[in-house]
Amino acid sequence: MLTVYSEDHYLHQPEGELYAGQLVPPFECPKRVEFVLDRLRETDLGRVVDPEAFGEAPLERVHDRGYLDFLKSAWRQWTEAGYGHQILPTVWPARRQRLRIPEHIDGKVGYYALAAETSMVEGTWRAALSSAEVALTAAKSIRDGQGAAFGLCRPPGHHAAKDMYGGYCFLNNAAIAAQYFLDNGADRVAILDPDFHHGNGTQDIFYTRADAFYLSLHGEPENAFPHFVGYADEIGEGDGEGFNANYPMPPGTPFAVWREALADALERIGRYGPDVLVISLGVDTYEKDPISFFKLTQGDFKTYGGMIGALGLPTLFLMEGGYAVEDVGVNTVNVLLGFADQG
Amino acid sequence: MLTVYSEDHYLHQPEGELYAGQLVPPFECPKRVEFVLDRLRETDLGRVVDPEAFGEAPLERVHDRGYLDFLKSAWRQWTEAGYGHQILPTVWPARRQRLRIPEHIDGKVGYYALAAETSMVEGTWRAALSSAEVALTAAKSIRDGQGAAFGLCRPPGHHAAKDMYGGYCFLNNAAIAAQYFLDNGADRVAILDPDFHHGNGTQDIFYTRADAFYLSLHGEPENAFPHFVGYADEIGEGDGEGFNANYPMPPGTPFAVWREALADALERIGRYGPDVLVISLGVDTYEKDPISFFKLTQGDFKTYGGMIGALGLPTLFLMEGGYAVEDVGVNTVNVLLGFADQG
Repeated sequence: MLTVYSEDHYLHQPEGELYAGQLVPPFECPKRVEFVLDRLRETDLGRVVDPEAFGEAPLERVHDRGYLDFLKSAWRQWTEAGYGHQILPTVWPARRQRLRIPEHIDGKVGYYALAAETSMVEGTWRAALSSAEVALTAAKSIRDGQGAAFGLCRPPGHHAAKDMYGGYCFLNNAAIAAQYFLDNGADRVAILDPDFHHGNGTQDIFYTRADAFYLSLHGEPENAFPHFVGYADEIGEGDGEGFNANYPMPPGTPFAVWREALADALERIGRYGPDVLVISLGVDTYEKDPISFFKLTQGDFKTYGGMIGALGLPTLFLMEGGYAVEDVGVNTVNVLLGFADQG
Repeated sequence: MLTVYSEDHYLHQPEGELYAGQLVPPFECPKRVEFVLDRLRETDLGRVVDPEAFGEAPLERVHDRGYLDFLKSAWRQWTEAGYGHQILPTVWPARRQRLRIPEHIDGKVGYYALAAETSMVEGTWRAALSSAEVALTAAKSIRDGQGAAFGLCRPPGHHAAKDMYGGYCFLNNAAIAAQYFLDNGADRVAILDPDFHHGNGTQDIFYTRADAFYLSLHGEPENAFPHFVGYADEIGEGDGEGFNANYPMPPGTPFAVWREALADALERIGRYGPDVLVISLGVDTYEKDPISFFKLTQGDFKTYGGMIGALGLPTLFLMEGGYAVEDVGVNTVNVLLGFADQG
């Protein structure tokens, strides 16, 4: 299986993440992908290549142009305001307030943010753009005939909405790749999101469409980020009704329960009959993850990789979350190995 | 003029405020009211008394019961989650998300917050309750026949909405006092808000009502907190249409311009004919304020106090913002002295 990877992710290294009432070293850090890369090389799963350039056109297919311009210029505006350190939102359009976009960078940041744990720095835009190109390059290899590919994306993408960032995400790599398939010959794409967190951004982007079926297994929003979306009754709207499926699960959920939700999701994907499957591969379902509450073990990742492989679809894996840093490599590659064994 | 003051404000002293990409010592700090108290005693404006207890009934008249319960229990829930330091929101109901109230404290905090610069600590509820009682005790003295009174409130109140905190505010002292007047014989109350920031909370609480006329002079929302409310076209709705008046002004606004807006607001208040006038007295319009952009000088505060006094209405002054700490006392008391000279 081909892996695509860019060193540009090192350009995104904020000082701190807002967590538990203080600024702490970010859970979403470069070491995460270093461990994945090391593990990939140990297991000899396949070649690791650099991404190609795609420009911004594929991003505009799923993101708002004003939002992209904001991401590109935010650091300049932030420093021109006399600020430093990292960009963090302090105010947002709350209930019963207006949705006009302010002029001041504090207001703009709040308008385009959906959460405050996610810091931006000078290199964030370049890192996010390269991460999207990692996804696109891997997608292109599948369009060109490969049965599977892995985009080792960082920063991750599934929380990035049409016009909002947060949850460590800026550009929605999975949505950008899915749209790329649809724009290059595919009629239907399924996006399966086994990351611990609900992929609110991906849901947001495809919520009213039938050509992309989004399915997510995640910690119930009552108790898990992003808290205000990801309920089971969110099934899509308009043309998209029936093409959004959420499987929220409570604290302590073991693999025996989780795999049943996965089996149901895979069965629905099979009936949908997509031309290609995109996997938002987060491994924060792991029992030792520091900010999540499911109980998957290392071996479970290989098992569920096999379940995905049994579908027999062209499959694009894109890296999302996973914060038990030293085990992120083993768990991620276990999914890919399980898939490859079965495929 | 009677001043009401409670030492309970010392119970609210968070470690940090989220500002410019880092946690800094809070701009809204105990020293602010110490300087006001010192200046009051120097000028011998009148007695300083402790507040009476009023219980929570007057708070429930303007705030949501679930919100009050949240404020009371937030610190306990925060520490039970294993968190410490101070309560800071990291996620909120963003565009196209749901308004269900989550179970986890992170979700609850985000649901009830409208900004992230405002930290809560163990003593915040008690300090906020005492601050409201300071306002109510001062209001009661006016109901009992005094021509004017000053509630030296801390924390301030005008950003606190029916069910949201932020902008250093938890309970809306001005709204609670205005409602107290209406519940105790007044037919109409005007609330004039010369604080640099728009009092989004007070506007929110009275937006659909004709018995409270809210008028605010403030930094334009395009460039000033709270950024998503405070535009001139917000004139009230339903029964409240015509009873909300915003005077947003741009960076650098001098007193010569500001006083014309004030004169217009006072003229409208005169025509409204309220039984009592509540002043949200922030002095962050001062030229040296570190987080604001108007250009009032120390003498201007005395001048505009006189303009308010010339209305001849029973008048309740309640402390709001002002962050040029060492001059907050002089500027605040100048407004009261100007009022007293004219009254």
